Amino acid sequence: MIRKFITTAVLFFILMILLIGKVSAQEVNPGKPAATNIAGVEYPRILDNLSVVFKIKAPDAKKVQIDLGKLYDMTKDDQGFWTVTTAPQVPGFHYYSLVIDGVKVVDPASETFYGMGRMASAIDIPEKGAGFYEVKDVPHGALSSKYYFSKVTNSWRRLFVYTPAGYDVNAKVKYPVVYIQHGGGEDERGWAVQGKTDIILDNLIAEGKAKPMIVVISNGNVTTGKGGGGYSNAAMAAFKEEMTKNIVPFIDKTYRTIADANHRALCGLSMGGGQAFYAGLGSLDCFSSVGVFSSGIFGGIANPNGKVFDADKEIPGLLSNSTSFNQKLKLFYVSVGEQDPRFEFTKKEVKKFQDSGLKVQFASFPGDHEWQVWRKSLHDFASRVFK
Amino acid sequence: MIRKFITTAVLFFILMILLIGKVSAQEVNPGKPAATNIAGVEYPRILDNLSVVFKIKAPDAKKVQIDLGKLYDMTKDDQGFWTVTTAPQVPGFHYYSLVIDGVKVVDPASETFYGMGRMASAIDIPEKGAGFYEVKDVPHGALSSKYYFSKVTNSWRRLFVYTPAGYDVNAKVKYPVVYIQHGGGEDERGWAVQGKTDIILDNLIAEGKAKPMIVVISNGNVTTGKGGGGYSNAAMAAFKEEMTKNIVPFIDKTYRTIADANHRALCGLSMGGGQAFYAGLGSLDCFSSVGVFSSGIFGGIANPNGKVFDADKEIPGLLSNSTSFNQKLKLFYVSVGEQDPRFEFTKKEVKKFQDSGLKVQFASFPGDHEWQVWRKSLHDFASRVFK
Repeated sequence: MIRKFITTAVLFFILMILLIGKVSAQEVNPGKPAATNIAGVEYPRILDNLSVVFKIKAPDAKKVQIDLGKLYDMTKDDQGFWTVTTAPQVPGFHYYSLVIDGVKVVDPASETFYGMGRMASAIDIPEKGAGFYEVKDVPHGALSSKYYFSKVTNSWRRLFVYTPAGYDVNAKVKYPVVYIQHGGGEDERGWAVQGKTDIILDNLIAEGKAKPMIVVISNGNVTTGKGGGGYSNAAMAAFKEEMTKNIVPFIDKTYRTIADANHRALCGLSMGGGQAFYAGLGSLDCFSSVGVFSSGIFGGIANPNGKVFDADKEIPGLLSNSTSFNQKLKLFYVSVGEQDPRFEFTKKEVKKFQDSGLKVQFASFPGDHEWQVWRKSLHDFASRVFK
Repeated sequence: MIRKFITTAVLFFILMILLIGKVSAQEVNPGKPAATNIAGVEYPRILDNLSVVFKIKAPDAKKVQIDLGKLYDMTKDDQGFWTVTTAPQVPGFHYYSLVIDGVKVVDPASETFYGMGRMASAIDIPEKGAGFYEVKDVPHGALSSKYYFSKVTNSWRRLFVYTPAGYDVNAKVKYPVVYIQHGGGEDERGWAVQGKTDIILDNLIAEGKAKPMIVVISNGNVTTGKGGGGYSNAAMAAFKEEMTKNIVPFIDKTYRTIADANHRALCGLSMGGGQAFYAGLGSLDCFSSVGVFSSGIFGGIANPNGKVFDADKEIPGLLSNSTSFNQKLKLFYVSVGEQDPRFEFTKKEVKKFQDSGLKVQFASFPGDHEWQVWRKSLHDFASRVFK
């Protein structure tokens, strides 16, 4: 009897150890490493509820925080590791900083991305069902970097060109071209890296939802050659000249394009949305489709002429002579994130466009001023253009 | 008299202020911003004697240092800016860290590069007369990223492909291919970004010093799919299978290559040099030219079978039957930096090759285990191969 009890107790004890062992093994590595982690690095990890666990070794630091929109204080264990578990995050691509004793730096655990005018850490929180920007078993195009000489900045500049699958093989086929621009504090890497342009287009074209097209991703910081950009009239004019006099002719010379306005689109996000508005609607001999994603120009956030935006003054006749614009424009598209401070004034401006008779296609997506909204904007724009 | 004196004194005083103002304006911004700085960022700056001035704002940090091989303590001014001027630096591409209260992080002022297993800051110290990796007014090829499916890692993997100027236009011309591999702690971005492969090839081909060729830059970390790599026999075997069974067939199917061993070369740096040695000399039905840059395999630093390296055992017959290798090998090339700890044992091994009758072309360049030596190795290798 006692023997049986002891045996049972021992078995129970072993079982408990196994159970506890399993539980604590799960606790050591909860969730999954983020896709934005450096290859093979375990933290940050994303939990099922989309909370993020950050962990970093900094034995000599006095205070370590994570700045992910909200500031999270990390706590240190006796081995010098600092950890924190955040609140559940919204799906999408979020820049973040590690803050060591008050200095914002990148997290050595994550890949870095050019945004906010510096190389920044970011974490890509997965969105269920949003496979449109995942590499899939479909025919893949190529994303190429090319150098061209700019007479505006008097320097060699780099741009990226997406060519669809089959471009190399179908040597006589010519393609329409989308020119797409990044936002402020970013450069041509934005749409190439954060935006996943090549993957989005590969998938769209494979599904038959978009026409095979070339996408050109250039650096919209034109004013000073290396830095620059911005919303001023001078910056917008410099961009327009760079785009229509340097970039478009270079692309038409170098790639098999259908070289007319009917087969050219210009779109962009935020600052690039402003550029698309001014250079696109201002050059309808060059472009027939224009896409403005999450731009501040329609409201008080940013536009070349101060706080008051008057579309008919910015692009003469846009409202008062909307018929002539409707004749030239094959697609005028506006999108914005539903949690973006630009949401309300963008909707209001779109209504003004519609009230004037100007044809405009509007879309909004869940999210703030960030890349998940812009990936969806590209996905949406590319499936509507050239049709 | 007094009035004249006062006037003179006032003029003198104004002159002094102007002079001091000018001097201190020069002192504020000595030298030139490094090419590796974020666009428009003023510091770090490189002085004429190749010293570097670093400057960073961190008012709340207790201790800030620059780790540039040597550790430099920075000093703080009353506005919270920390500065230091380093000793003169050797020309070339140097990774460095900002050390904030003991934590090594990247400098927000610089671009980041994947090296040492993380995104790292680096500074490119210019070398006089070394224009071979500068963008010039010559015909430019393209550097494209492509996805292929690996049956070894069972995942989609990215590689970069350089196609020379004219590739798109000369639709019937076929090209030889160099496959080039990065080092440990790096990935396919190494030769694409730090290595400046496209610029080096553009210049070489334009000068008529290299044949127009395709260069394929793949990820040599094959063992685990995402991370991995290394010098083990298993890692070397996995790389060889990935290269010969997945990558080469994908490239031959996708690009206009001359698809035979005579027109294929495999080369690499450090760990990638080891991969070129084992997978290249071990697959002479696939490759006829092999380049080993700065590899540790010849000495005690790193090789799959411990400290003792016996070339004839690693590649059976390489020394004892050198005639048969000479018949198959169009080019066997070895290079190393003259300040690299690998320099002496590499020279010794090359002498063994030569003593056995194996034909080998050897080159050395000033510099340690770093990218300036590898840029020159590529430049040299590409000008010798396929001739």
